[in-house]
Formats: sequence, C-alpha cells, structure tokens
Amino acid sequence: MSHDLKLDLPAGLPFIDYEREFDYPVADVFRAHKDPELLKQWLGPRRLQMEVQNYEFRTGGSYHYLHTSPDGDPYSFSGIFHTVRENDCIIQTFEFGGYPDVVSLEFMTFKDLGEGRCRLVGHSVYPTLEARDGMAESGMESGMSEGYERLDELLESERVS
Amino acid sequence: MSHDLKLDLPAGLPFIDYEREFDYPVADVFRAHKDPELLKQWLGPRRLQMEVQNYEFRTGGSYHYLHTSPDGDPYSFSGIFHTVRENDCIIQTFEFGGYPDVVSLEFMTFKDLGEGRCRLVGHSVYPTLEARDGMAESGMESGMSEGYERLDELLESERVS
Repeated sequence: MSHDLKLDLPAGLPFIDYEREFDYPVADVFRAHKDPELLKQWLGPRRLQMEVQNYEFRTGGSYHYLHTSPDGDPYSFSGIFHTVRENDCIIQTFEFGGYPDVVSLEFMTFKDLGEGRCRLVGHSVYPTLEARDGMAESGMESGMSEGYERLDELLESERVS
Repeated sequence: MSHDLKLDLPAGLPFIDYEREFDYPVADVFRAHKDPELLKQWLGPRRLQMEVQNYEFRTGGSYHYLHTSPDGDPYSFSGIFHTVRENDCIIQTFEFGGYPDVVSLEFMTFKDLGEGRCRLVGHSVYPTLEARDGMAESGMESGMSEGYERLDELLESERVS
C-alpha cells in the first residue's frame, strides 16, 4: 500500500517538515535516493521528465538535475551534499535555478520501523519566510506526494522483477 | 578606524543577521576570506589558535578548520561552499564538531561603498530556534567582533608593508 505524505508548515518559522512511511526497508528507500538511475524514475511529478546531469552522492559532492515539462520548459536544481551517511541521513543544500541564491538546507533522516518498513523524516530550512511560503505555493506538496507514490511503484516493480 | 559589528537576532526566527563596515576595498576583505593563510590570522577571538586543515574556496569545495584554546581544547568546524562569487558573495554550510548534524547555512555579501570602503552583510540560518539561540549564547558576538578587529589590523599591516 501507499502511505500519505504528512507535510507541516509551522506558522512563523521558515521550515517545511514532512514525514512519509514506506513498506520497504531503509536500504531500498535510501538506495532510491543514492542511485541517479533510480532517482530520475521517481523524483517529482509524473508529467515532468527528469535528467540528472551530475550526482556525486557523497559528503562534499555536488548534484545538478533538470526537470522538463511537456511544453519543454526546463526547471534546474542544484546543490551540495553536506553529509551523506548510508541508510541514515542526508543533509544537502538545494537551489532552484529560477530563484538564484535562494538556497535552502534539507535534512532527511531514514528511520527503520522494523518488519521491512521505514519512515523518511524531512526538515527543510529556508533563508526567509517568504522563500518558504513561495516553495509551499509552488505545488511542492502534490509534486512530493506523487513522487513518493512513484517511489513505491518503483520499489514494488523491483520486488516483483 | 575600526567599525562596530551590528548583530541582530530577530525574535522568533532562526536567523542571525549582521553587518560590518571596513575602510578597505571589497577586494581586500574578500581576499581575507579566500586565502587560508590570511583567514587563519583573523578569524575568531585572539586567544584561539587557528589551523586550516582543508580550504577549497570555490563553488562545491569543502573546508575544515580547527580552533585551539590556550588549554589545548580543540574546536572543529567544517562545511561546504555552495556558492563562491569573487568579490560578491559566499554561501556556505557550517557545522561545529561539538554539535554534529546541527548544520547552518551562511550567506555573506560584499557591498562596495565607494572610496575604498565596503560592507559585509551576513545572514545565518539555523535548523531550529534553539540552535540559533545556542550559537548566540556561545560567545559568538564577541568572537566575531574581535575577529573583524583583527581583520582591520591585518589589512592595515598589509597596507603599511
């Protein structure tokens, strides 16, 4: 089954907090964040094509990817991995090319729930309240929800195959 | 002359904002942030010895330095340069080894004031209000003030020499 994304925008604080459970082990969900060949099959809404231009998934590495809409509009994202700890946590910067220098910091923690299940806990920190609100109003929640549904489907297809 | 550090802790927001003017050109103040041989002569309070272990001052580069107290207590700091734009801005992550995973994001902008003067504008973003308050209570303000006084002295000595 697929679980709901729980998203919280705390009033007056430039944070976005979220949680999402998966009926798959931490190792599988973490690997889907680590391997760009998997990542591009699930990250973001279905209608966008994703191309990974650079993905050095390690502490100190950089990443750069591009989402392209059916109309051909490109959306570029880039950042640096401050911390990568296998099957445990990712701390990375995040910048949308449309808003240069509006950089956020994302904390993702992977928690083992036993019985082959896990929970992803996210905490994103924005440089201003306005930047947080702008991100929230950009369709982020539906894009993330759809992305995690795609991630469920990807891991299910791997389990079946 | 040496200017005062203006430091602001906005109520209820996990930010530290600061401004500091220098009677030196942007290029000089920026170079003192870029060159680790200069950096270690001014960053932080006078009583601490600074050793730069790694300093890749470029977009995507990493840094790691150590402050050591007269008693020999080590304080380790590390992070990644998300953006480095010469004589313009630095966006970097920052982590104190004593609080692992409590990573902040620092924005520094260098503004030319004309007549060989400039202003450094800083905006630091913490993952929680508690982390911001803890940083503010750690002696940060006096350490920064003293550091910028040392930076004035360093640039003055270079001008004289």
